[in-house]
Amino acid sequence: VDRSRLEAFSDGVFAVAITLLALNLAVKGPGNKHLLTQLGDLWPAYVAYLISFFTIGIIWVNHHTLLNNVMVVTRTLLFVNLTLLAVVVAIPFATTTMADYLGQGWPNANVAAVLYGGVFELMSIGFLLVSEWVLRHDQYVRDPLPAAAKNPARLRFYFGQVPYVIATAVGFFSAPATVIITALTAFYYIFQRFQPGPQAASAQPPAGE
Amino acid sequence: VDRSRLEAFSDGVFAVAITLLALNLAVKGPGNKHLLTQLGDLWPAYVAYLISFFTIGIIWVNHHTLLNNVMVVTRTLLFVNLTLLAVVVAIPFATTTMADYLGQGWPNANVAAVLYGGVFELMSIGFLLVSEWVLRHDQYVRDPLPAAAKNPARLRFYFGQVPYVIATAVGFFSAPATVIITALTAFYYIFQRFQPGPQAASAQPPAGE
Amino acid sequence: VDRSRLEAFSDGVFAVAITLLALNLAVKGPGNKHLLTQLGDLWPAYVAYLISFFTIGIIWVNHHTLLNNVMVVTRTLLFVNLTLLAVVVAIPFATTTMADYLGQGWPNANVAAVLYGGVFELMSIGFLLVSEWVLRHDQYVRDPLPAAAKNPARLRFYFGQVPYVIATAVGFFSAPATVIITALTAFYYIFQRFQPGPQAASAQPPAGE
Amino acid sequence: VDRSRLEAFSDGVFAVAITLLALNLAVKGPGNKHLLTQLGDLWPAYVAYLISFFTIGIIWVNHHTLLNNVMVVTRTLLFVNLTLLAVVVAIPFATTTMADYLGQGWPNANVAAVLYGGVFELMSIGFLLVSEWVLRHDQYVRDPLPAAAKNPARLRFYFGQVPYVIATAVGFFSAPATVIITALTAFYYIFQRFQPGPQAASAQPPAGE
Repeated sequence: VDRSRLEAFSDGVFAVAITLLALNLAVKGPGNKHLLTQLGDLWPAYVAYLISFFTIGIIWVNHHTLLNNVMVVTRTLLFVNLTLLAVVVAIPFATTTMADYLGQGWPNANVAAVLYGGVFELMSIGFLLVSEWVLRHDQYVRDPLPAAAKNPARLRFYFGQVPYVIATAVGFFSAPATVIITALTAFYYIFQRFQPGPQAASAQPPAGE
Repeated sequence: VDRSRLEAFSDGVFAVAITLLALNLAVKGPGNKHLLTQLGDLWPAYVAYLISFFTIGIIWVNHHTLLNNVMVVTRTLLFVNLTLLAVVVAIPFATTTMADYLGQGWPNANVAAVLYGGVFELMSIGFLLVSEWVLRHDQYVRDPLPAAAKNPARLRFYFGQVPYVIATAVGFFSAPATVIITALTAFYYIFQRFQPGPQAASAQPPAGE
Repeated sequence: VDRSRLEAFSDGVFAVAITLLALNLAVKGPGNKHLLTQLGDLWPAYVAYLISFFTIGIIWVNHHTLLNNVMVVTRTLLFVNLTLLAVVVAIPFATTTMADYLGQGWPNANVAAVLYGGVFELMSIGFLLVSEWVLRHDQYVRDPLPAAAKNPARLRFYFGQVPYVIATAVGFFSAPATVIITALTAFYYIFQRFQPGPQAASAQPPAGE
Repeated sequence: VDRSRLEAFSDGVFAVAITLLALNLAVKGPGNKHLLTQLGDLWPAYVAYLISFFTIGIIWVNHHTLLNNVMVVTRTLLFVNLTLLAVVVAIPFATTTMADYLGQGWPNANVAAVLYGGVFELMSIGFLLVSEWVLRHDQYVRDPLPAAAKNPARLRFYFGQVPYVIATAVGFFSAPATVIITALTAFYYIFQRFQPGPQAASAQPPAGE
């Protein structure tokens, strides 16, 4: 299994999972409440859909930035990556549950919020495992980080856990707080690199840069 | 993330979304109305399915024509593209709702029509954002448009919004009108390039052309 | 859009459609009939699943054999191909309907059979359109057929319609006959090339053959 | 059809099937039992999900290791591969049924366990058929196994059937035993190669190995 195949399979799983998120957007059909009312009642589904969609999108972007550097794929990497994907695939389930229970008050909304934050935290741990593999296998990586840069990189990856740990813990007290923190986290990751300056995500900058 | 990866992921999302459209084609099974009656009652579902299928197909074609020219993928482009995909993934939802409510009269059919036209308009705006990114980043594009050709190209993209704006607005008064306008728009985009003359969509014309 | 992109998108649609076929395999869960009885009652679903799975598989194989030869992808080809895919995506719907109604007697089983045969016939017509495009565009094709070989090839493609026309027509009188004919057609296409002799489907035979 | 296309299509089917597994993770929504109770009641679904996810993942890894060596794709290989995929696509069905009936006692839980073990055994047979094709077609394979190594390889593939045969047979007496055996089998395949030593799964080891 070479890297392009690992990426193609992961892309497929990301693409299907991100599309299944939208299955949660559904009304009950004629004979129920007015359509406009039903569409309005779906607002937690829209919010949960957008947060989950962009969170999976961010992980997809970072996943490729990370793997882009890998030259040899070992079985360990394959199964560490599968563990990450097993969590990604569960995100639509957590999203639907969150959307269904956000407006239901204590304790159900809180259980849904802890599940929602918890799945994102698990995804984040899965990503951490893939990062650790890359940091520890200089022999399989093109342009490995210099030894002195590894612990700072590690620190950054570990800090990346903080928002989802907070989002999960806060869910015990307030489900909307979980929603707000996960949304802000997604926003932060999208916009953190939009500053002027070198922003190319491609590994092959055009000649002259 | 290089361009081929961006395209592969987008292709996956387009392929899943276009296939999920057909989940809306379903009868209720034995013990309900005669099958022939049920299949007949599904006519709004067939119409909505065909319009949405070809509209997503057109966007897929245009998406690749546009990205084919991009040499460097930045994080901005990744997230602008994710925004477009987030709307594409919602099209099956709008399609199902339209199919379920088209025959239900005022106001439900109209709400469904406005939702249907509105999602296509959002998709069109998403596509506009990707186009703008390409027009503004000559340094990342192979064969950028000459400066003098940019505003006419822009104008064409902005004009492309008109049919969906009308389809959405008209939905407040007549749901069938929304259906007809979105269908005509799809037809127009399919057939506009079928005229004799240079029609190759490939970037590599055969030697001698 | 170059050929590999057209193939990747088509592969995605084929892969999703072929996998959605299995959604029809489902029991009702605890509190209904004995599981063994339910699994037994599903036999029309297994039969319909297998026929549809291998029929889509055959079309996928033939689709690539055909496109493998295409060097330039025009917008016409893109939309002819989309038409084929629009039918492929509807096969899970026809399959589910067939499975649900096969045991229901006249007229519902017959309506389902005509729908089932009819969708396969439409798919076959869609494939014919792609074939015609290839036969008519020597300038876009690597190794085009010699002029003298075109009409015989055409004849073969047109003869390929016959089984599905019969399967559809026969459905008005007997739903099981439709099932048998579509199953035999799939078997024929799978085994017709299993004879000893040149059987490589790849365009690049190993040196020395 | 060349190998990369066969792999891309197979990857698509694997990716969709592995993602559909998670559709089984679902609660009933407000108005039913407490969410926490519902999430707790889902434990057989989590167990079945994880086993099936990693089992499909292992087959995906082995599938590529096997095909990586194939230079010419014949129609026979295409259809043998389709047979394997037809079983893979049925795994979500067996998984859902297992999850729904595991806690239901004799005989329903046992029927579900036999179905679950049986589908894995069928998948294993499908994989055996692909292996046999590779072992028998030295002319289409890069670096074929030496003749003396073939029967030992065969033996290893046949031994690979044993756990799933046992898991299926044991299901008649105890459904949890089936779950435990299939879980242990997945664990074994994941960890068997995690020993220190040459563990690269890639065909291109880095220079110096």
